[in-house]
Amino acid sequence: MSRNDRGDRYRSGAREAGPRDIETVVLYGWHPVREALQNPARRLGRLLATENALNRLKEERIDTRIRAEIVRPGEIEKLLTPDAVHQGLYLEASPLPVPSFAQLSEHDVVLVLDQITDPHNVGAIVRTAAAFSVAAIITTERHSPAATGVLAKSASGGLEHVPILYVKNLGEALEDMGKNGVLRIGLDSEGPAPLDATKLTGPLALVLGAEGKGLRQRTRGLCDALVRLDMPGAIKSLNVSNAAALALYVARRSVPAPPTS
Amino acid sequence: MSRNDRGDRYRSGAREAGPRDIETVVLYGWHPVREALQNPARRLGRLLATENALNRLKEERIDTRIRAEIVRPGEIEKLLTPDAVHQGLYLEASPLPVPSFAQLSEHDVVLVLDQITDPHNVGAIVRTAAAFSVAAIITTERHSPAATGVLAKSASGGLEHVPILYVKNLGEALEDMGKNGVLRIGLDSEGPAPLDATKLTGPLALVLGAEGKGLRQRTRGLCDALVRLDMPGAIKSLNVSNAAALALYVARRSVPAPPTS
Repeated sequence: MSRNDRGDRYRSGAREAGPRDIETVVLYGWHPVREALQNPARRLGRLLATENALNRLKEERIDTRIRAEIVRPGEIEKLLTPDAVHQGLYLEASPLPVPSFAQLSEHDVVLVLDQITDPHNVGAIVRTAAAFSVAAIITTERHSPAATGVLAKSASGGLEHVPILYVKNLGEALEDMGKNGVLRIGLDSEGPAPLDATKLTGPLALVLGAEGKGLRQRTRGLCDALVRLDMPGAIKSLNVSNAAALALYVARRSVPAPPTS
Repeated sequence: MSRNDRGDRYRSGAREAGPRDIETVVLYGWHPVREALQNPARRLGRLLATENALNRLKEERIDTRIRAEIVRPGEIEKLLTPDAVHQGLYLEASPLPVPSFAQLSEHDVVLVLDQITDPHNVGAIVRTAAAFSVAAIITTERHSPAATGVLAKSASGGLEHVPILYVKNLGEALEDMGKNGVLRIGLDSEGPAPLDATKLTGPLALVLGAEGKGLRQRTRGLCDALVRLDMPGAIKSLNVSNAAALALYVARRSVPAPPTS
């Protein structure tokens, strides 16, 4: 599993041909950029800031680490989608380092998202993943929202704690996990056993599908077990971020995070 | 606790002066209206439908129970906000019956929402509440989203299973709960004890505040205990619907739903 991430409007020219670990993520808006600037795990590429935004960073004594290019708002707008709320800040930075599957320990839980497209939901999942010390989120390059904008806002700082690995082929990634001893548990409202009655061991991958569609056929086939969340009420399926929160809570009882995390 | 609910654009003229139980909720859009038509707990007032929408109901063999007024889309639009996606259906119906606090049993859990304004979040909470057989959601008339539109969509059918009580004064409602033996547990990231180490008994009220702001001072003061959700990671607060899901999961271990629900 190489270092890898994705920006909204920006793709390194070397993306397709070159090594994955030189790729770049784009962050914009006050909170996401401020948090990335303060995260030593982020190597910084290019920072564009309006004069106002730069003054605000100075007032809050944020060390930008690199020299900002002072620009007018229009120059940032040219780099983003029309509805992007950039608040005068645009940053190109390295993605967070992603551990290889072989490096995962008995304390590690990862989340696998199978084509979950709603950025509010993925953002809430990133936030909850950060709360439960998730080692990485693995998702598809296609049919997944960019880790910026609405997603970053919903993640509420979580993007600085949980690396996201974007893969071309989720099936291959799941096979790779299996070869490296990762227990792959798929959440499925029709699963034969309840999650909290299933023996869970780390390293553990919890695999979540999109609401309505659920896990794709190949994804299901590559899970070691399919499990359901048992609930007493009339509705049997949850919002996917709520399902992720419950699954992580249950999983962390059997796969406790390392004491130092 | 009287029968009570609220519509988006419609308020019964008798709302302020008359008894609460003649109030009306407004539902619109294909799924919410179809589900309400099929819910015997809903008394139906007035149904407006375009010819197309009515044909679709007939094709799916939905018994409308009352005679629909066939209208052009513009007539529905006049009754709603400009961005409302009504899909040719508009229904005035009774709110679901809300149990009185005195009626709540040892199996009952209610949710109290203290000025949670985001309709995506409240919708996800309603859905999760339906999954955990929550007896009622209590929230404020002001600073809460209407139970229709975005909220109904996020609730994904949950509005037909969980009655929502809108109160003028949440403090009075909490006092009333206390007098009726309801254990009031406030979720607070700085709470002195973790939820899963707190003795929980039914009837139980889980009290949730808005993200960032948390519980208001008076709300906190009226809780029997303030508890936190312990998580191992760097981020200590969750999306409020995720927090609600975890709290309900933990609560249902001590306060099991009745076998028949």
